[in-house]
Amino acid sequence: MDPFDDLVTANASYASEFALGELPAPPRRNLAVVTCMDCRIDPLAVLGLEPGEAHVLRNAGARVTDDVLRSLVKSVNQLGVTRVAVVHHTDCGAAKIKLDDLRATVQAATGHDPADVDFNLIADQDEALAADVEALRTYPYLPDGTEVAGFLYDVTTGVAESRHRATIG
Amino acid sequence: MDPFDDLVTANASYASEFALGELPAPPRRNLAVVTCMDCRIDPLAVLGLEPGEAHVLRNAGARVTDDVLRSLVKSVNQLGVTRVAVVHHTDCGAAKIKLDDLRATVQAATGHDPADVDFNLIADQDEALAADVEALRTYPYLPDGTEVAGFLYDVTTGVAESRHRATIG
Repeated sequence: MDPFDDLVTANASYASEFALGELPAPPRRNLAVVTCMDCRIDPLAVLGLEPGEAHVLRNAGARVTDDVLRSLVKSVNQLGVTRVAVVHHTDCGAAKIKLDDLRATVQAATGHDPADVDFNLIADQDEALAADVEALRTYPYLPDGTEVAGFLYDVTTGVAESRHRATIG
Repeated sequence: MDPFDDLVTANASYASEFALGELPAPPRRNLAVVTCMDCRIDPLAVLGLEPGEAHVLRNAGARVTDDVLRSLVKSVNQLGVTRVAVVHHTDCGAAKIKLDDLRATVQAATGHDPADVDFNLIADQDEALAADVEALRTYPYLPDGTEVAGFLYDVTTGVAESRHRATIG
């Protein structure tokens, strides 16, 4: 059996009722959301957004990495985004696992030690969130006036608490 | 006015009706989806998924960058993911813009030339998708047997076409 059959079948159903074919590429709310890949987070629902309204960027931990920054350069300079919400969350895998344990697990599963990988693990959740907001604030390729917010989302209550704010420039 | 007021207000409404507080962290369908930040893509809907079922990773272009790879190491080795769907899309900003134009735009908006940034732009969409599937297949820190699929999503029809497949190992 094809391991992706469930997705192919579901997409055929989605496409048969598709109604978003006229959406423009620039996000209507001039917003980008950076959040974690965690399966418990439904970013559009959490922030009351519809398709067409926001860029959504996701990685392990909602960290403001080089990949997020280079992506946001396009959001802001090419597609009209003026504000960025970074949404970390409680019970995050990036904060729960220890680097030594992760390396040992990968070594056992693959035969290779990922000693050369920066996993962007989180020691203190609020400090990491503040650092990610600051990484955005000081990035040279986002224009003055871009607004940045740091939220902490509680996966057990659905509350996204506003924790940090900055304006670039 | 607070530039994030709309999100704060919408989240209060979301949290007041929150019903996902018991979801476990490992994605129930053992799936990770890598797709673009583009606002027209609603990845869960496109693939028939619910919260709790899949990790979702997103950046500009759905490129398999170091950040995506280091994130997937955690998906696969820590949280039970056994298959990864990479979903590129038509009309992608990463394929439409030229590097010189992007650099000039950023220079004009910020006073800084992002000459040191790799924007992972796309010259040929299908070749880029094949390259991203191959980057996953050959990454040393994902275990043998992990399944990889490359889809091209059409933003005007809702169809996610299966284009490339690989099995790690």
